[in-house]
Amino acid sequence: MKEEIVAYFKNLQDTICKGLEQADGKAKFAEDKWVREGGGGGRTRVIQNGDVIEKGGVNFSEVFGPAPAFLSKSPSSFFASGVSLVIHPGSPMIPIIHMNVRYLRLEGLDQKLKTSEWFGGGIDLTPIYVDEADATYFHQTLKAACDRFHPSFYPEFKKWADDYFFIKHRNETRGIGGIFFDHVGQDEKSLKIPLGQFFEFVQAVGNTFLPMYSHLIRKNKNKPFGEKEKQWQLMRRGRYAEFNLVYDRGTKFGLETNGRTESILMSLPPRVTWTYNFVPEKNSEEEMTLDMLKKGIEWVKK
Amino acid sequence: MKEEIVAYFKNLQDTICKGLEQADGKAKFAEDKWVREGGGGGRTRVIQNGDVIEKGGVNFSEVFGPAPAFLSKSPSSFFASGVSLVIHPGSPMIPIIHMNVRYLRLEGLDQKLKTSEWFGGGIDLTPIYVDEADATYFHQTLKAACDRFHPSFYPEFKKWADDYFFIKHRNETRGIGGIFFDHVGQDEKSLKIPLGQFFEFVQAVGNTFLPMYSHLIRKNKNKPFGEKEKQWQLMRRGRYAEFNLVYDRGTKFGLETNGRTESILMSLPPRVTWTYNFVPEKNSEEEMTLDMLKKGIEWVKK
Repeated sequence: MKEEIVAYFKNLQDTICKGLEQADGKAKFAEDKWVREGGGGGRTRVIQNGDVIEKGGVNFSEVFGPAPAFLSKSPSSFFASGVSLVIHPGSPMIPIIHMNVRYLRLEGLDQKLKTSEWFGGGIDLTPIYVDEADATYFHQTLKAACDRFHPSFYPEFKKWADDYFFIKHRNETRGIGGIFFDHVGQDEKSLKIPLGQFFEFVQAVGNTFLPMYSHLIRKNKNKPFGEKEKQWQLMRRGRYAEFNLVYDRGTKFGLETNGRTESILMSLPPRVTWTYNFVPEKNSEEEMTLDMLKKGIEWVKK
Repeated sequence: MKEEIVAYFKNLQDTICKGLEQADGKAKFAEDKWVREGGGGGRTRVIQNGDVIEKGGVNFSEVFGPAPAFLSKSPSSFFASGVSLVIHPGSPMIPIIHMNVRYLRLEGLDQKLKTSEWFGGGIDLTPIYVDEADATYFHQTLKAACDRFHPSFYPEFKKWADDYFFIKHRNETRGIGGIFFDHVGQDEKSLKIPLGQFFEFVQAVGNTFLPMYSHLIRKNKNKPFGEKEKQWQLMRRGRYAEFNLVYDRGTKFGLETNGRTESILMSLPPRVTWTYNFVPEKNSEEEMTLDMLKKGIEWVKK
């Protein structure tokens, strides 16, 4: 199955890059192939200064070697493969998006650890201005993909995203959440669903990305904005950088496994502002957005 | 002695703020007094959009309460006070500077931990373009302050700064270093020097700041620069943000002790750029600067 999984991830990267180039209409992805010293490598693809996308990266990687301490305490080897993407649009009217889908396999090198394998991933949306219709559409799309597999997936993974994409020191969620899951398919947490079915689920999640985000681009790219909206975007991007550098486990995993720094940190926004103690005006659009950066909002009405 | 230490730190904040306003010539510090829920508080002073300083903060704080787990494993209370500053000049020809001087006291609440107290701190300089004369002047000033107390201080604390202000995932130092020290005066590491003498040392370090940085401002503020230098500055500021958010222990300490987020993160640069995989031209000024962002360079010639 490993080969099948890797083939799917490579294909997903290809499909998404092609689709995003179409949605942008101007810029093209540039590819950097890289080799990891400890084993494996990847294909980093970056798009910059497009008509829609100011900076975006869609990475495929396949890395292996001795497992780092935080993955396993007993001697073992790991294999990890996945697709990870972050898109920073130029317009503050189009939300930032992130997706990651990955497969991990851990093999014990002595008797203490048996082999285990699992999937993880997530998608989350970070609007600069929360549009409730877009937020509901986004969550509805994810819910539909989840519901095909198990009724507990959406509510469970949605809560997981709320808890994960949270900037503790700001008491703010990064955006309006989405879904997040990890270690699915591993024996002890598997709901008795076979690993192959989780692979199908991960494909379903990966496949939602392109039509869903293309829709959000088309719907919002021609909305007008001014200096005030641009400044707010640059500050919200500051929060995005804070989350990625302080809390994000993918970033940590990458840096601690001696991943390729430029590929890992391609997720950082192109231009960012940190203004001391900015407080939005009462009843402004900015304040209304802040009010919606909270855990536990049910975007899909029952 | 605690009161005397706190009084010195408050006075140091006042003196530095006044001096920086003079050096800037236009902008003034605005003060936010804040109270910490767990005990204590501080005075955050921020200067923005000056003729010289684009964004700078000079913070005094005095916080206390139950010690967080990373400070002590057995139940204890802590007291911490200090001054912390970061200055981001508008011109790429003037280096970013950081200084922190602090006092910590840990009191055991049962028999397992005896009371201990110590000083910590550091100054480091982050030029956008390394000017060797400035770098030598900076290190010479710190060395002179150190040498008054013990011949081992400068070499030891200079190496500590090289190791501390290091961006591992970039394999770069944050700038040209300076000095860094922690737990000085605590019994086991004290070189048999009484705590009072370490307090004098900390004052000597704190007092170097204003004349030294004012000199660097005067010397460099009228140097011309263009778009290329500005872009390089915005990228170097990205590294600064990476260090502060990923590695800096002061930031971690602040966020984990529920410090005031805006005061802690005032250290972040005002405007930042992350460009994918920027590589400076061969033999350019930018490349020459990168070559000097290494550990172990002896700026003070023997």
